[in-house]
Amino acid sequence: MVSDAEEAAFEVGIKFGALYHQFAGTPVSPASAGSLETAIEESIENQPHCVGVTVDVLEDRLAAALADSPADYTELTGEFMEVEVVVDYEGVEAVARMAMRDGYPLMELVETEG
Amino acid sequence: MVSDAEEAAFEVGIKFGALYHQFAGTPVSPASAGSLETAIEESIENQPHCVGVTVDVLEDRLAAALADSPADYTELTGEFMEVEVVVDYEGVEAVARMAMRDGYPLMELVETEG
Amino acid sequence: MVSDAEEAAFEVGIKFGALYHQFAGTPVSPASAGSLETAIEESIENQPHCVGVTVDVLEDRLAAALADSPADYTELTGEFMEVEVVVDYEGVEAVARMAMRDGYPLMELVETEG
Amino acid sequence: MVSDAEEAAFEVGIKFGALYHQFAGTPVSPASAGSLETAIEESIENQPHCVGVTVDVLEDRLAAALADSPADYTELTGEFMEVEVVVDYEGVEAVARMAMRDGYPLMELVETEG
Repeated sequence: MVSDAEEAAFEVGIKFGALYHQFAGTPVSPASAGSLETAIEESIENQPHCVGVTVDVLEDRLAAALADSPADYTELTGEFMEVEVVVDYEGVEAVARMAMRDGYPLMELVETEG
Repeated sequence: MVSDAEEAAFEVGIKFGALYHQFAGTPVSPASAGSLETAIEESIENQPHCVGVTVDVLEDRLAAALADSPADYTELTGEFMEVEVVVDYEGVEAVARMAMRDGYPLMELVETEG
Repeated sequence: MVSDAEEAAFEVGIKFGALYHQFAGTPVSPASAGSLETAIEESIENQPHCVGVTVDVLEDRLAAALADSPADYTELTGEFMEVEVVVDYEGVEAVARMAMRDGYPLMELVETEG
Repeated sequence: MVSDAEEAAFEVGIKFGALYHQFAGTPVSPASAGSLETAIEESIENQPHCVGVTVDVLEDRLAAALADSPADYTELTGEFMEVEVVVDYEGVEAVARMAMRDGYPLMELVETEG
Protein backbone atom coordinates (compact mmCIF):
# COMPACT_ATOMS: atom_id res chain seq x y z
CA MET A 1 0.00 0.00 0.00
CA VAL A 2 1.22 3.44 -0.89
CA SER A 3 -0.23 6.65 0.60
CA ASP A 4 -1.17 9.70 -1.46
CA ALA A 5 1.64 11.64 0.25
CA GLU A 6 4.14 8.97 -0.83
CA GLU A 7 2.75 9.09 -4.37
CA ALA A 8 3.12 12.87 -4.36
CA ALA A 9 6.72 12.54 -3.15
CA PHE A 10 7.43 9.95 -5.87
CA GLU A 11 5.97 12.19 -8.56
CA VAL A 12 7.96 15.25 -7.50
CA GLY A 13 11.11 13.09 -7.44
CA ILE A 14 10.47 11.97 -11.03
CA LYS A 15 10.15 15.59 -12.14
CA PHE A 16 13.44 16.52 -10.48
CA GLY A 17 15.40 13.61 -11.94
CA ALA A 18 13.87 14.26 -15.36
CA LEU A 19 14.59 17.98 -15.27
CA TYR A 20 18.18 17.53 -14.21
CA HIS A 21 19.15 14.75 -16.58
CA GLN A 22 17.27 16.14 -19.58
CA PHE A 23 18.90 19.56 -19.39
CA ALA A 24 22.29 19.04 -17.70
CA GLY A 25 24.94 19.52 -20.36
CA THR A 26 22.98 22.14 -22.33
CA PRO A 27 25.26 24.90 -23.65
CA VAL A 28 24.40 28.05 -21.71
CA SER A 29 25.64 31.63 -21.37
CA PRO A 30 24.32 34.61 -19.41
CA ALA A 31 22.57 35.78 -22.60
CA SER A 32 20.76 32.47 -23.21
CA ALA A 33 19.92 31.74 -19.56
CA GLY A 34 16.47 33.30 -19.78
CA SER A 35 15.14 31.26 -22.68
CA LEU A 36 16.49 28.07 -21.11
CA GLU A 37 14.71 28.81 -17.81
CA THR A 38 11.39 29.26 -19.60
CA ALA A 39 11.78 26.14 -21.72
CA ILE A 40 12.70 23.96 -18.72
CA GLU A 41 9.73 25.25 -16.73
CA GLU A 42 7.21 24.78 -19.53
CA SER A 43 8.50 21.35 -20.57
CA ILE A 44 8.45 19.82 -17.09
CA GLU A 45 5.07 21.39 -16.30
CA ASN A 46 3.69 19.15 -19.08
CA GLN A 47 4.29 16.10 -16.92
CA PRO A 48 1.44 14.48 -14.96
CA HIS A 49 0.46 16.02 -11.59
CA CYS A 50 2.96 18.87 -12.00
CA VAL A 51 1.46 22.20 -10.95
CA GLY A 52 4.51 24.47 -10.98
CA VAL A 53 8.19 24.55 -11.88
CA THR A 54 10.44 27.54 -11.14
CA VAL A 55 13.95 27.54 -12.56
CA ASP A 56 16.52 30.23 -11.90
CA VAL A 57 19.63 29.89 -14.05
CA LEU A 58 22.19 31.84 -12.04
CA GLU A 59 23.55 34.39 -14.48
CA ASP A 60 25.97 35.90 -11.97
CA ARG A 61 27.48 32.52 -11.22
CA LEU A 62 27.71 31.77 -14.96
CA ALA A 63 29.44 35.10 -15.55
CA ALA A 64 31.89 34.43 -12.71
CA ALA A 65 32.74 30.98 -14.06
CA LEU A 66 33.24 32.34 -17.56
CA ALA A 67 35.47 35.18 -16.37
CA ASP A 68 38.24 32.62 -15.77
CA SER A 69 37.65 30.78 -19.02
CA PRO A 70 38.69 31.15 -22.66
CA ALA A 71 35.10 30.19 -23.63
CA ASP A 72 32.00 32.40 -23.55
CA TYR A 73 29.58 29.63 -22.64
CA THR A 74 29.57 26.54 -20.45
CA GLU A 75 27.41 23.45 -19.82
CA LEU A 76 24.44 23.63 -17.49
CA THR A 77 25.05 21.79 -14.21
CA GLY A 78 23.49 21.92 -10.78
CA GLU A 79 25.80 24.67 -9.59
CA PHE A 80 24.24 27.08 -12.09
CA MET A 81 20.58 26.66 -11.24
CA GLU A 82 18.07 26.78 -8.43
CA VAL A 83 14.86 24.84 -8.95
CA GLU A 84 11.54 24.41 -7.16
CA VAL A 85 8.94 21.89 -8.30
CA VAL A 86 5.40 21.53 -6.93
CA VAL A 87 3.24 18.46 -7.59
CA ASP A 88 -0.36 17.78 -6.64
CA TYR A 89 -1.39 14.14 -6.29
CA GLU A 90 -5.02 13.62 -5.34
CA GLY A 91 -5.04 16.80 -3.29
CA VAL A 92 -1.68 16.21 -1.59
CA GLU A 93 0.92 18.74 -2.57
CA ALA A 94 4.64 17.90 -2.54
CA VAL A 95 7.33 20.57 -2.86
CA ALA A 96 10.98 19.88 -3.68
CA ARG A 97 13.97 22.14 -4.20
CA MET A 98 17.49 21.93 -5.50
CA ALA A 99 20.00 23.96 -3.54
CA MET A 100 23.78 24.00 -3.18
CA ARG A 101 25.05 22.50 0.07
CA ASP A 102 28.79 22.18 0.82
CA GLY A 103 29.54 22.83 -2.82
CA TYR A 104 27.19 20.12 -4.10
CA PRO A 105 23.74 20.45 -5.62
CA LEU A 106 21.29 18.71 -3.32
CA MET A 107 17.73 17.81 -4.24
CA GLU A 108 15.47 17.89 -1.21
CA LEU A 109 11.84 17.16 -0.47
CA VAL A 110 10.66 20.22 1.43
CA GLU A 111 7.13 19.17 2.38
CA THR A 112 4.10 17.10 1.58
CA GLU A 113 0.78 18.51 2.63
CA GLY A 114 -2.76 17.51 1.87
CA MET B 1 7.67 17.45 8.12
CA VAL B 2 8.47 14.62 5.79
CA SER B 3 8.39 10.95 6.78
CA ASP B 4 11.14 8.47 5.92
CA ALA B 5 8.68 6.63 3.65
CA GLU B 6 8.02 9.89 1.76
CA GLU B 7 11.77 10.51 1.51
CA ALA B 8 12.24 6.98 0.15
CA ALA B 9 9.47 7.57 -2.40
CA PHE B 10 11.08 10.89 -3.42
CA GLU B 11 14.48 9.25 -3.85
CA VAL B 12 13.16 6.40 -5.99
CA GLY B 13 11.31 8.95 -8.12
CA ILE B 14 14.53 10.89 -8.72
CA LYS B 15 16.28 7.72 -9.88
CA PHE B 16 13.46 6.94 -12.33
CA GLY B 17 13.35 10.40 -13.83
CA ALA B 18 17.14 10.48 -14.06
CA LEU B 19 17.36 7.06 -15.68
CA TYR B 20 14.70 7.79 -18.25
CA HIS B 21 15.86 11.24 -19.31
CA GLN B 22 19.57 10.42 -19.26
CA PHE B 23 19.24 7.41 -21.52
CA ALA B 24 16.12 7.99 -23.67
CA GLY B 25 17.30 8.71 -27.20
CA THR B 26 20.36 6.44 -27.00
CA PRO B 27 20.93 4.57 -30.29
CA VAL B 28 20.17 0.90 -29.60
CA SER B 29 19.91 -2.37 -31.53
CA PRO B 30 19.30 -5.94 -30.38
CA ALA B 31 23.10 -6.46 -30.48
CA SER B 32 23.89 -3.47 -28.26
CA ALA B 33 20.98 -3.92 -25.84
CA GLY B 34 23.02 -5.92 -23.34
CA SER B 35 25.82 -3.41 -22.81
CA LEU B 36 23.29 -0.61 -22.47
CA GLU B 37 21.35 -2.50 -19.77
CA THR B 38 24.52 -2.99 -17.73
CA ALA B 39 25.65 0.60 -18.09
CA ILE B 40 22.25 2.01 -17.08
CA GLU B 41 22.09 -0.26 -14.02
CA GLU B 42 25.62 0.52 -12.84
CA SER B 43 25.35 4.26 -13.45
CA ILE B 44 22.08 4.77 -11.57
CA GLU B 45 23.22 2.50 -8.73
CA ASN B 46 25.90 5.12 -8.05
CA GLN B 47 23.22 7.55 -6.85
CA PRO B 48 22.54 8.07 -3.14
CA HIS B 49 20.31 5.52 -1.33
CA CYS B 50 20.01 3.36 -4.45
CA VAL B 51 20.33 -0.33 -3.64
CA GLY B 52 19.37 -1.96 -6.92
CA VAL B 53 18.46 -1.20 -10.52
CA THR B 54 17.29 -3.83 -12.98
CA VAL B 55 16.90 -2.87 -16.62
CA ASP B 56 15.60 -5.16 -19.33
CA VAL B 57 15.99 -3.74 -22.82
CA LEU B 58 13.39 -5.69 -24.77
CA GLU B 59 15.33 -7.21 -27.64
CA ASP B 60 12.28 -8.92 -29.14
CA ARG B 61 10.36 -5.67 -29.23
CA LEU B 62 13.38 -3.90 -30.75
CA ALA B 63 13.68 -6.60 -33.40
CA ALA B 64 9.96 -6.34 -34.20
CA ALA B 65 10.14 -2.55 -34.55
CA LEU B 66 13.21 -2.80 -36.78
CA ALA B 67 11.62 -5.44 -39.02
CA ASP B 68 9.38 -2.71 -40.49
CA SER B 69 12.19 -0.18 -40.80
CA PRO B 70 14.94 0.65 -43.28
CA ALA B 71 17.29 1.22 -40.30
CA ASP B 72 19.01 -1.41 -38.17
CA TYR B 73 18.86 0.55 -34.92
CA THR B 74 16.44 2.87 -33.18
CA GLU B 75 16.37 5.26 -30.20
CA LEU B 76 15.72 3.96 -26.72
CA THR B 77 12.28 4.91 -25.41
CA GLY B 78 10.02 3.58 -22.69
CA GLU B 79 8.37 1.06 -24.96
CA PHE B 80 11.68 -0.81 -25.29
CA MET B 81 12.56 -1.28 -21.62
CA GLU B 82 11.29 -2.58 -18.33
CA VAL B 83 12.89 -1.14 -15.22
CA GLU B 84 12.77 -1.77 -11.49
CA VAL B 85 14.55 0.49 -8.98
CA VAL B 86 14.92 -0.14 -5.24
CA VAL B 87 15.97 2.57 -2.80
CA ASP B 88 16.65 2.36 0.92
CA TYR B 89 16.20 5.54 2.96
CA GLU B 90 16.97 5.15 6.65
CA GLY B 91 15.71 1.59 6.62
CA VAL B 92 12.59 2.24 4.55
CA GLU B 93 12.67 0.56 1.19
CA ALA B 94 10.82 1.97 -1.80
CA VAL B 95 10.30 -0.02 -5.00
CA ALA B 96 9.24 1.47 -8.34
CA ARG B 97 8.70 -0.02 -11.78
CA MET B 98 8.18 1.13 -15.32
CA ALA B 99 5.65 -0.91 -17.26
CA MET B 100 3.61 -0.45 -20.42
CA ARG B 101 -0.07 0.31 -19.80
CA ASP B 102 -2.51 1.02 -22.66
CA GLY B 103 0.44 1.54 -24.98
CA TYR B 104 2.17 4.06 -22.70
CA PRO B 105 5.15 3.59 -20.42
CA LEU B 106 3.97 4.22 -16.88
CA MET B 107 6.27 4.73 -13.89
CA GLU B 108 4.67 3.46 -10.71
CA LEU B 109 5.58 3.33 -7.05
CA VAL B 110 4.97 -0.29 -6.08
CA GLU B 111 5.58 -0.15 -2.33
CA THR B 112 7.33 1.51 0.57
CA GLU B 113 8.18 -0.69 3.51
CA GLY B 114 10.31 -0.15 6.58
CA MET C 1 45.51 17.55 -43.69
CA VAL C 2 42.00 18.83 -43.32
CA SER C 3 40.49 21.61 -45.46
CA ASP C 4 38.49 24.51 -44.08
CA ALA C 5 35.40 23.14 -45.85
CA GLU C 6 35.87 19.79 -44.10
CA GLU C 7 36.32 21.59 -40.78
CA ALA C 8 33.12 23.53 -41.43
CA ALA C 9 31.29 20.28 -42.24
CA PHE C 10 32.65 18.69 -39.06
CA GLU C 11 31.54 21.63 -36.95
CA VAL C 12 28.02 21.68 -38.35
CA GLY C 13 27.80 17.93 -37.75
CA ILE C 14 28.75 18.40 -34.09
CA LYS C 15 26.01 21.01 -33.65
CA PHE C 16 23.40 18.67 -35.17
CA GLY C 17 24.37 15.68 -33.06
CA ALA C 18 24.49 17.87 -29.95
CA LEU C 19 21.13 19.49 -30.62
CA TYR C 20 19.38 16.21 -31.27
CA HIS C 21 20.77 14.22 -28.37
CA GLN C 22 20.56 17.07 -25.86
CA PHE C 23 16.89 17.78 -26.49
CA ALA C 24 15.37 14.51 -27.75
CA GLY C 25 13.14 13.18 -25.01
CA THR C 26 12.10 16.61 -23.71
CA PRO C 27 8.42 16.69 -22.71
CA VAL C 28 6.63 18.88 -25.25
CA SER C 29 3.09 19.96 -26.11
CA PRO C 30 1.73 22.41 -28.67
CA ALA C 31 1.60 25.04 -25.91
CA SER C 32 5.25 24.62 -24.88
CA ALA C 33 6.66 24.21 -28.40
CA GLY C 34 7.52 27.88 -28.78
CA SER C 35 9.68 28.23 -25.68
CA LEU C 36 11.50 25.01 -26.53
CA GLU C 37 12.31 26.25 -30.05
CA THR C 38 13.83 29.46 -28.67
CA ALA C 39 15.86 27.68 -26.01
CA ILE C 40 17.28 25.13 -28.48
CA GLU C 41 18.25 27.87 -30.92
CA GLU C 42 19.91 30.07 -28.30
CA SER C 43 21.73 27.22 -26.57
CA ILE C 44 23.28 25.74 -29.71
CA GLU C 45 24.18 29.18 -31.06
CA ASN C 46 26.53 29.44 -28.07
CA GLN C 47 28.76 26.77 -29.58
CA PRO C 48 31.95 27.72 -31.48
CA HIS C 49 31.63 28.78 -35.14
CA CYS C 50 27.83 28.58 -35.02
CA VAL C 51 26.20 31.53 -36.79
CA GLY C 52 22.56 30.48 -36.88
CA VAL C 53 20.16 27.82 -35.68
CA THR C 54 16.50 27.67 -36.75
CA VAL C 55 14.23 25.17 -35.03
CA ASP C 56 10.61 24.61 -35.95
CA VAL C 57 8.78 22.36 -33.51
CA LEU C 58 5.86 21.14 -35.60
CA GLU C 59 2.80 22.01 -33.54
CA ASP C 60 0.37 20.54 -36.06
CA ARG C 61 2.17 17.24 -36.06
CA LEU C 62 2.27 17.28 -32.25
CA ALA C 63 -1.45 17.99 -32.11
CA ALA C 64 -2.17 15.16 -34.56
CA ALA C 65 -0.09 12.69 -32.55
CA LEU C 66 -1.78 13.74 -29.31
CA ALA C 67 -5.27 13.44 -30.80
CA ASP C 68 -4.89 9.65 -30.68
CA SER C 69 -3.37 9.61 -27.22
CA PRO C 70 -4.62 9.66 -23.62
CA ALA C 71 -1.75 12.09 -22.82
CA ASP C 72 -1.58 15.80 -23.56
CA TYR C 73 2.17 15.91 -24.18
CA THR C 74 4.78 13.70 -25.76
CA GLU C 75 8.59 13.46 -26.01
CA LEU C 76 10.45 15.49 -28.59
CA THR C 77 11.81 13.33 -31.42
CA GLY C 78 12.98 14.03 -34.94
CA GLU C 79 9.50 13.62 -36.39
CA PHE C 80 8.34 16.71 -34.51
CA MET C 81 10.98 19.20 -35.60
CA GLU C 82 12.68 20.76 -38.60
CA VAL C 83 16.11 22.22 -38.03
CA GLU C 84 18.64 24.23 -39.99
CA VAL C 85 22.12 25.00 -38.66
CA VAL C 86 24.69 27.33 -40.25
CA VAL C 87 28.36 27.33 -39.25
CA ASP C 88 31.18 29.59 -40.38
CA TYR C 89 34.71 28.18 -40.17
CA GLU C 90 37.42 30.58 -41.33
CA GLY C 91 35.09 32.08 -43.90
CA VAL C 92 33.68 28.80 -45.17
CA GLU C 93 30.00 28.42 -44.44
CA ALA C 94 28.39 25.00 -43.97
CA VAL C 95 24.62 24.53 -43.91
CA ALA C 96 22.85 21.39 -42.65
CA ARG C 97 19.20 20.46 -42.28
CA MET C 98 17.10 17.81 -40.66
CA ALA C 99 14.13 16.68 -42.71
CA MET C 100 11.80 13.68 -42.73
CA ARG C 101 12.48 11.23 -45.54
CA ASP C 102 10.53 7.98 -45.91
CA GLY C 103 9.24 8.40 -42.39
CA TYR C 104 12.70 8.87 -40.85
CA PRO C 105 14.42 12.05 -39.73
CA LEU C 106 17.51 12.52 -41.89
CA MET C 107 20.31 14.96 -41.14
CA GLU C 108 21.89 16.23 -44.32
CA LEU C 109 24.76 18.52 -45.23
CA VAL C 110 23.25 20.91 -47.75
CA GLU C 111 26.30 22.90 -48.81
CA THR C 112 29.72 24.23 -47.93
CA GLU C 113 30.72 27.48 -49.50
CA GLY C 114 33.60 29.88 -48.90
CA MET D 1 27.78 20.43 -54.09
CA VAL D 2 29.33 18.54 -51.22
CA SER D 3 32.37 16.24 -51.53
CA ASP D 4 32.58 12.79 -50.01
CA ALA D 5 35.31 14.05 -47.68
CA GLU D 6 33.00 16.82 -46.45
CA GLU D 7 30.20 14.28 -45.98
CA ALA D 8 32.58 12.07 -43.99
CA ALA D 9 33.58 15.06 -41.84
CA PHE D 10 29.90 15.93 -41.29
CA GLU D 11 29.07 12.37 -40.27
CA VAL D 12 31.93 12.10 -37.78
CA GLY D 13 30.88 15.46 -36.33
CA ILE D 14 27.33 14.17 -35.80
CA LYS D 15 28.65 11.13 -33.94
CA PHE D 16 30.77 13.32 -31.65
CA GLY D 17 27.98 15.72 -30.82
CA ALA D 18 25.58 12.83 -30.25
CA LEU D 19 27.99 10.91 -28.05
CA TYR D 20 28.82 13.91 -25.90
CA HIS D 21 25.31 15.22 -25.37
CA GLN D 22 23.70 11.81 -24.94
CA PHE D 23 26.06 10.69 -22.20
CA ALA D 24 27.31 13.88 -20.49
CA GLY D 25 25.72 14.00 -17.06
CA THR D 26 25.65 10.22 -16.58
CA PRO D 27 26.47 9.27 -12.97
CA VAL D 28 29.88 7.56 -13.05
CA SER D 29 32.43 6.17 -10.60
CA PRO D 30 35.72 4.33 -11.13
CA ALA D 31 33.82 1.05 -10.62
CA SER D 32 31.16 1.79 -13.26
CA ALA D 33 33.51 3.39 -15.82
CA GLY D 34 34.07 0.15 -17.72
CA SER D 35 30.43 -0.65 -18.44
CA LEU D 36 29.79 2.94 -19.50
CA GLU D 37 32.71 2.86 -21.97
CA THR D 38 31.36 -0.29 -23.60
CA ALA D 39 27.79 1.01 -23.81
CA ILE D 40 28.85 4.33 -25.35
CA GLU D 41 31.00 2.57 -27.94
CA GLU D 42 28.33 0.06 -28.93
CA SER D 43 25.51 2.59 -29.03
CA ILE D 44 27.27 5.12 -31.25
CA GLU D 45 28.62 2.37 -33.53
CA ASN D 46 24.97 1.70 -34.43
CA GLN D 47 24.81 5.03 -36.26
CA PRO D 48 25.14 5.21 -40.07
CA HIS D 49 28.67 5.13 -41.56
CA CYS D 50 30.28 4.65 -38.14
CA VAL D 51 33.06 2.06 -38.27
CA GLY D 52 34.64 2.45 -34.84
CA VAL D 53 34.26 4.25 -31.53
CA THR D 54 36.85 4.06 -28.75
CA VAL D 55 35.99 5.58 -25.38
CA ASP D 56 38.35 5.73 -22.44
CA VAL D 57 36.68 6.87 -19.24
CA LEU D 58 39.65 8.11 -17.22
CA GLU D 59 39.39 6.22 -13.95
CA ASP D 60 42.48 7.86 -12.45
CA ARG D 61 41.09 11.30 -13.11
CA LEU D 62 37.71 10.26 -11.66
CA ALA D 63 39.43 8.90 -8.55
CA ALA D 64 41.42 12.12 -8.15
CA ALA D 65 38.30 14.27 -8.47
CA LEU D 66 36.43 12.11 -5.96
CA ALA D 67 39.27 12.21 -3.44
CA ASP D 68 38.36 15.85 -2.69
CA SER D 69 34.63 15.19 -2.59
CA PRO D 70 32.07 13.95 -0.07
CA ALA D 71 30.46 11.92 -2.89
CA ASP D 72 31.66 8.64 -4.35
CA TYR D 73 30.50 9.33 -7.90
CA THR D 74 30.30 12.29 -10.23
CA GLU D 75 28.73 13.23 -13.58
CA LEU D 76 30.46 12.34 -16.82
CA THR D 77 31.94 15.38 -18.57
CA GLY D 78 34.61 15.87 -21.20
CA GLU D 79 37.39 16.08 -18.66
CA PHE D 80 36.80 12.44 -17.72
CA MET D 81 36.95 10.82 -21.15
CA GLU D 82 39.06 10.47 -24.27
CA VAL D 83 37.21 9.50 -27.43
CA GLU D 84 38.11 8.56 -30.99
CA VAL D 85 35.47 8.05 -33.68
CA VAL D 86 36.08 6.71 -37.21
CA VAL D 87 33.51 7.07 -39.99
CA ASP D 88 33.59 5.72 -43.54
CA TYR D 89 31.54 7.59 -46.12
CA GLU D 90 31.69 6.11 -49.63
CA GLY D 91 35.28 4.99 -49.08
CA VAL D 92 36.48 8.20 -47.44
CA GLU D 93 37.47 7.75 -43.83
CA ALA D 94 37.22 10.57 -41.30
CA VAL D 95 38.81 10.37 -37.86
CA ALA D 96 38.00 12.69 -34.95
CA ARG D 97 39.20 12.85 -31.36
CA MET D 98 38.30 14.57 -28.14
CA ALA D 99 41.28 15.69 -26.10
CA MET D 100 41.88 18.14 -23.28
CA ARG D 101 43.58 21.36 -24.35
CA ASP D 102 44.27 24.21 -21.89
CA GLY D 103 41.87 22.61 -19.44
CA TYR D 104 39.00 22.34 -21.95
CA PRO D 105 37.77 19.31 -23.87
CA LEU D 106 38.32 19.98 -27.56
CA MET D 107 36.76 17.94 -30.36
CA GLU D 108 39.02 17.87 -33.39
CA LEU D 109 38.88 16.43 -36.88
CA VAL D 110 42.18 14.60 -37.23
CA GLU D 111 42.04 13.53 -40.88
CA THR D 112 39.91 12.63 -43.85
CA GLU D 113 41.39 10.15 -46.28
CA GLY D 114 39.95 8.25 -49.19
